[in-house]
Amino acid sequence: MTNMDLGMTERLKPIHEKVSRMVREEIMPLDEEFHAEVGKNGDRWSYTARQTEILEGLKAKARERGLWNFWLTDSERGYGLSTVEYAYLAEEMGKAHLGAETFNCSAPDTGNMEVIERYGTETHKKEWLAPLLEGKIRSAYLMTEPDVASSDATNISMSCVRDGDDYVLNGEKWWSSGAGDPRCKIYIVMVKTSSDAPKHQQHSMIFVPADTPGITKLRAMKVYGDDDAPHGHLHLKFEDVRVPADNLILGEGRGFEIAQGRLGPGRIHHCMRAIGQAEMALEQMCKRAMRREAFGKPLAQLGANYDIIAECRMEIEMARLLCLKAAWMMDQGDPRAAAPWISQIKVVAPRVALKVTDEAIQMFGGQGISQDTRLARSWTHLRTLRLADGPDAVHRRQVARVELKKYTQEKV
Amino acid sequence: MTNMDLGMTERLKPIHEKVSRMVREEIMPLDEEFHAEVGKNGDRWSYTARQTEILEGLKAKARERGLWNFWLTDSERGYGLSTVEYAYLAEEMGKAHLGAETFNCSAPDTGNMEVIERYGTETHKKEWLAPLLEGKIRSAYLMTEPDVASSDATNISMSCVRDGDDYVLNGEKWWSSGAGDPRCKIYIVMVKTSSDAPKHQQHSMIFVPADTPGITKLRAMKVYGDDDAPHGHLHLKFEDVRVPADNLILGEGRGFEIAQGRLGPGRIHHCMRAIGQAEMALEQMCKRAMRREAFGKPLAQLGANYDIIAECRMEIEMARLLCLKAAWMMDQGDPRAAAPWISQIKVVAPRVALKVTDEAIQMFGGQGISQDTRLARSWTHLRTLRLADGPDAVHRRQVARVELKKYTQEKV
Amino acid sequence: MTNMDLGMTERLKPIHEKVSRMVREEIMPLDEEFHAEVGKNGDRWSYTARQTEILEGLKAKARERGLWNFWLTDSERGYGLSTVEYAYLAEEMGKAHLGAETFNCSAPDTGNMEVIERYGTETHKKEWLAPLLEGKIRSAYLMTEPDVASSDATNISMSCVRDGDDYVLNGEKWWSSGAGDPRCKIYIVMVKTSSDAPKHQQHSMIFVPADTPGITKLRAMKVYGDDDAPHGHLHLKFEDVRVPADNLILGEGRGFEIAQGRLGPGRIHHCMRAIGQAEMALEQMCKRAMRREAFGKPLAQLGANYDIIAECRMEIEMARLLCLKAAWMMDQGDPRAAAPWISQIKVVAPRVALKVTDEAIQMFGGQGISQDTRLARSWTHLRTLRLADGPDAVHRRQVARVELKKYTQEKV
Amino acid sequence: MTNMDLGMTERLKPIHEKVSRMVREEIMPLDEEFHAEVGKNGDRWSYTARQTEILEGLKAKARERGLWNFWLTDSERGYGLSTVEYAYLAEEMGKAHLGAETFNCSAPDTGNMEVIERYGTETHKKEWLAPLLEGKIRSAYLMTEPDVASSDATNISMSCVRDGDDYVLNGEKWWSSGAGDPRCKIYIVMVKTSSDAPKHQQHSMIFVPADTPGITKLRAMKVYGDDDAPHGHLHLKFEDVRVPADNLILGEGRGFEIAQGRLGPGRIHHCMRAIGQAEMALEQMCKRAMRREAFGKPLAQLGANYDIIAECRMEIEMARLLCLKAAWMMDQGDPRAAAPWISQIKVVAPRVALKVTDEAIQMFGGQGISQDTRLARSWTHLRTLRLADGPDAVHRRQVARVELKKYTQEKV
Repeated sequence: MTNMDLGMTERLKPIHEKVSRMVREEIMPLDEEFHAEVGKNGDRWSYTARQTEILEGLKAKARERGLWNFWLTDSERGYGLSTVEYAYLAEEMGKAHLGAETFNCSAPDTGNMEVIERYGTETHKKEWLAPLLEGKIRSAYLMTEPDVASSDATNISMSCVRDGDDYVLNGEKWWSSGAGDPRCKIYIVMVKTSSDAPKHQQHSMIFVPADTPGITKLRAMKVYGDDDAPHGHLHLKFEDVRVPADNLILGEGRGFEIAQGRLGPGRIHHCMRAIGQAEMALEQMCKRAMRREAFGKPLAQLGANYDIIAECRMEIEMARLLCLKAAWMMDQGDPRAAAPWISQIKVVAPRVALKVTDEAIQMFGGQGISQDTRLARSWTHLRTLRLADGPDAVHRRQVARVELKKYTQEKV
Repeated sequence: MTNMDLGMTERLKPIHEKVSRMVREEIMPLDEEFHAEVGKNGDRWSYTARQTEILEGLKAKARERGLWNFWLTDSERGYGLSTVEYAYLAEEMGKAHLGAETFNCSAPDTGNMEVIERYGTETHKKEWLAPLLEGKIRSAYLMTEPDVASSDATNISMSCVRDGDDYVLNGEKWWSSGAGDPRCKIYIVMVKTSSDAPKHQQHSMIFVPADTPGITKLRAMKVYGDDDAPHGHLHLKFEDVRVPADNLILGEGRGFEIAQGRLGPGRIHHCMRAIGQAEMALEQMCKRAMRREAFGKPLAQLGANYDIIAECRMEIEMARLLCLKAAWMMDQGDPRAAAPWISQIKVVAPRVALKVTDEAIQMFGGQGISQDTRLARSWTHLRTLRLADGPDAVHRRQVARVELKKYTQEKV
Repeated sequence: MTNMDLGMTERLKPIHEKVSRMVREEIMPLDEEFHAEVGKNGDRWSYTARQTEILEGLKAKARERGLWNFWLTDSERGYGLSTVEYAYLAEEMGKAHLGAETFNCSAPDTGNMEVIERYGTETHKKEWLAPLLEGKIRSAYLMTEPDVASSDATNISMSCVRDGDDYVLNGEKWWSSGAGDPRCKIYIVMVKTSSDAPKHQQHSMIFVPADTPGITKLRAMKVYGDDDAPHGHLHLKFEDVRVPADNLILGEGRGFEIAQGRLGPGRIHHCMRAIGQAEMALEQMCKRAMRREAFGKPLAQLGANYDIIAECRMEIEMARLLCLKAAWMMDQGDPRAAAPWISQIKVVAPRVALKVTDEAIQMFGGQGISQDTRLARSWTHLRTLRLADGPDAVHRRQVARVELKKYTQEKV
Repeated sequence: MTNMDLGMTERLKPIHEKVSRMVREEIMPLDEEFHAEVGKNGDRWSYTARQTEILEGLKAKARERGLWNFWLTDSERGYGLSTVEYAYLAEEMGKAHLGAETFNCSAPDTGNMEVIERYGTETHKKEWLAPLLEGKIRSAYLMTEPDVASSDATNISMSCVRDGDDYVLNGEKWWSSGAGDPRCKIYIVMVKTSSDAPKHQQHSMIFVPADTPGITKLRAMKVYGDDDAPHGHLHLKFEDVRVPADNLILGEGRGFEIAQGRLGPGRIHHCMRAIGQAEMALEQMCKRAMRREAFGKPLAQLGANYDIIAECRMEIEMARLLCLKAAWMMDQGDPRAAAPWISQIKVVAPRVALKVTDEAIQMFGGQGISQDTRLARSWTHLRTLRLADGPDAVHRRQVARVELKKYTQEKV
């Protein structure tokens, strides 16, 4: 592809139409019920029968329709969608809480599946990739730790020591998203395998089955008070957790290399889902503005509301275009060239989506902050994106470094 | 008082010192434990023994020390503090979740007590004011309704019809803050008593005991997913709720008159507590910035963090001064002149506190959005203040109207 | 074109390269000298010999190289560039003060030439279009008036009355950009021809030669103190200005119809030139940040400067993409569908460029506000764009109306 | 004064009333005429007869009325106003271009006079202080230099070498404000007297008469294109400029000590004048919003204009209170404690005034950026304040350092 085509391709249009319609007509209407079921069986960390019915029902329908595993790029098994094409679908999936999972396109599974596919042994693929591709199990990605600033990932400290044919892991991880889910069977864990190697070669990634002895679920981290059960963001303790040596991915010291490859597309997906959330929020805001009245007029006609709506529209358009550009850069095959673009959207997309959602909340008044709309939940989720996969400050720093480097070279 | 003295008076200083120290040394350390107890007895809407012990213990200590009912202005029974003086104490109380209640200065009790004192009969005072002053019971203020835009309070629609010696109420109220508390015994309710009277004389306020037959607790409204149990913001249904006619306050059609008198000081208290929350957030942000390291340096020395801290300091100072000025205006005895100042702080103080808290959250990373600091909870509470007692837009409108009026008169 | 290709086409690349290089290597170095010449001959409203030499020299070179009249879209005489393609060139031209004129692509000439080409008689074309295409004369577009809010163009009041074979014009116009230039020979004037017709059919456009008797140049409007001589934004008085009846364009009452067609592309050009100005400002900011030292470090490493640079980069990228999208919409052949996109960029592009330029100025310190860089002049020019062709508020209103309309239709 | 009284004192009220009225009724109406006279006699750097008549006429009136030299604090010769009291007057003076000078309270004269009074010999006082106090001559303060980042004042490099009974100065200064005025007779110059001393003891201040041989006026720096004649911000060259040794103030190496004492009050005055400019801008904005119509309504009733006006009012109130607090801190007698407050207002007051003025400009449309209102000129002047006496970034840094220091001490 030599042209910078940021539009939908012809082959994507019918798929997009189907995904979009299914999200709006079939998934969104069930979101609230799914949430309301949490804990009804007395255990927030298992699925009720109704939850299973909802989720598996949606997945079965999606799969039947061939709307499944879109993220499998350039593969015989998948659609072979470009990142730009996938981005348009991610936006639609972002509009419903169960959107991504319905199509087996959830984080962190998509990134984890890519890792297993690229670097796993046949055994790993059979054990974890196959059921992940089928949507039978789920996975988690264990990165951040409570005692260190994970914004600087070289701080990661969980020890991983070779002992015969095994590696033995000790330490704590938190914000292990999805680890609360009873279906979560496999963790990909960032560990420290050396203190002597160069700074970016001290870390490794390793596969750890969720049921390995020595792992304790200390607690669920809450996001603005919400434990996000049964998905959950767990705080885990590893005490002498022992796994076979060939679970170590690619070799000792290659953790950052894998992380970089893994995070790029994932960040684009996150950002486009955020754009989807922003679009939903703007739609709800507009509808509210037209239907609700105060002082004898629809809210739309009061005060700055036209301006607020216009600003939201403009910011969404710009953020979306930037995401599509980053996706297009990714499709050009040079991840290093794409990196600063991904840093840009990582800052911009959550910010815009947070702003639009906050304005929508304000337009709804008390209802906006409550459980009666999807806005408040959406906001807290979006707020995590300003921290997950690197806080804003780290990404801004990357963008600036690339910018300044242009002129350093000039000097020489 | 002819001078615009916005500082602490000599008489206030020792009181302020005691309150400040008690908040920091005795109340704050118990906040988290109090929260963690919620629901441990299987019922989120009752107090556990430990919660009662914590809360009553703090209250007893405060009362023993004479740190009680500060809000009683110009009264024989209270300190007779000015609004400015009280404001400084409210800031301190705002720093801990249990701060205000420890000193029997919680919303909505303070405003409700003032209403009972001014307009209640001797019976009302004996039954409700006395135990409220003692901190034995609590109260709620029922204003907003799910079906109308309460930002325009003339929309309030709960019917209240005279029937013999009684009034009979029908309708729904939500965001009835504190109505979840088992100690909440009395509601002050905004109702519509006429459709024919001039627009601002169709509404009335009435006392309704919480246990009056016909009141159903439909559900607790959640704030970004948090039900705020056992305090709670309830959605209530009134079906043929019958109370004695002399429960109607001041007479039919005087609801807005009472609301205006009631809300002014309450808004100042809210705003100063928000300033207290902002100060706590800034303190935590600074400590974090100095202790946490990344990329080989304390966070403080990275990127824009100095600028962020400075901006937070400046915005807090300005917002506090504006609150103190509004309090001083209130003390001048002309509520109408004070009104636009109160509208100003109602917009400014929550906004600043939200911003500072959000920056603190960002400095803390994942921990900031979690249950491990008070920041996330503080943020969601502050967010409600942009809606409670009138959304920002309504207050901005008031400020602008006063501003423009200056030049209308000039034209004549 | 069915794909949304926002990149440079293959045919554009060599042209873009030539334009970009000429701007940077030949035009920019002469900008300051050109400015410094103003008034050296004792008359700010004529060209000095050196100014003529600079400007005509550049134009001759550009023309020789075939870099001329790029704006002529889909024409036999021009390149037939799409709006997207032209947009990339406009960005480059925006980087130098004399950029657009060098390539005979200045406002308001491009828009005016289109009007003459589409609606002019053969005589008009011979007299005005031919020399405009040659870069021999210049033109102005007279729209706004001192006594009415021109943001609502239906307020335009200059009278234009049929009298025999002529029309007779009376009234005042201001902000007649370019009317100060001695080479400016023809005005296109918005006038009111009827008070009875429907609101948007009361106005007309008419050709008025600059030397028609009855026109007085009252004064030059200053932009933040700068008269922008010899170009100039004049305040003109029309007293019984008489022109042949067939100078009236398209017929009475069709003024808005022509204005709409005329302004769309012009706004895109303005916006892309603004992006070019922003790019130049960012480049200068970065270079300054690396070369200038304070407190023992390059400015780049101090405080929030990395963050500032990153934010500027991100905002420029987003604004550019939005402009390209608007240009692409324009290329789709449905101006009505493109209109809200043009409104969006009309708000966004000047805002971003102003912000970036202001940050660059701040990075330069005192030098930034002075005549020693192009930043201050660039800023004041950009500031006019928030008002010219409709103030921000009007464009935001348009964007919001389109947004809300989506849901009005849904209701039916 | 133990109380934090930020209001007007009784003694100030009648003075304030007189100053306020004189500014509005006598000075403001002459501002535009004064500006329009610049250069009418063929020399922008001398006063026309009419300019002298306007300025001296106003000064004579002010002096007759005893409204003169208000800045003389705690002095027998002056009013002995506190900084808070003076601040209220500075706000009024800021509303007119000739406001401060009319009352002999202009920058940089007030600061310079304080320096001469405190540190000058009797000869210095006789020669310069006396006529300055009379308003007969003016002065300049020469600090920044073109070749170094003056934000870090330790970079100041003008050499000053002892040679017998003289000092000999060499180097360049720019932004020498007021040095264009033919009445400007004395410069206070920051020079470098040592390269060996500790960093903050290498600089000194020295009196240099404006007519000393060796000083060349290279050019006038322009502010967004305006040379601010006849006041002027000059770029000066010093070549072997020789002055008597006792012109060196306080002794070698004490330049920073003097600068600190000199700048504090000056910054407060600048900030309060900025508040005055903001008030004028808001007043003009409101009047415009009510008188100008578009789309059938006064502008005030369109779009976000109520919100814009309200935000401006709130920001002005907060900024003014912060300035008054800083002034009050200054009055407490501990400049070191006052310093971070002055840094705060140095960031805040120009920012708020710029914002309000920019909104006013936008409300006025084309007229706002033109010479027809005082807004554009006011804006460019305000913009210089974000750089003069230290750029925002430096002041934010100071505020943050004080903030963080609180917790460093705690750690010990």
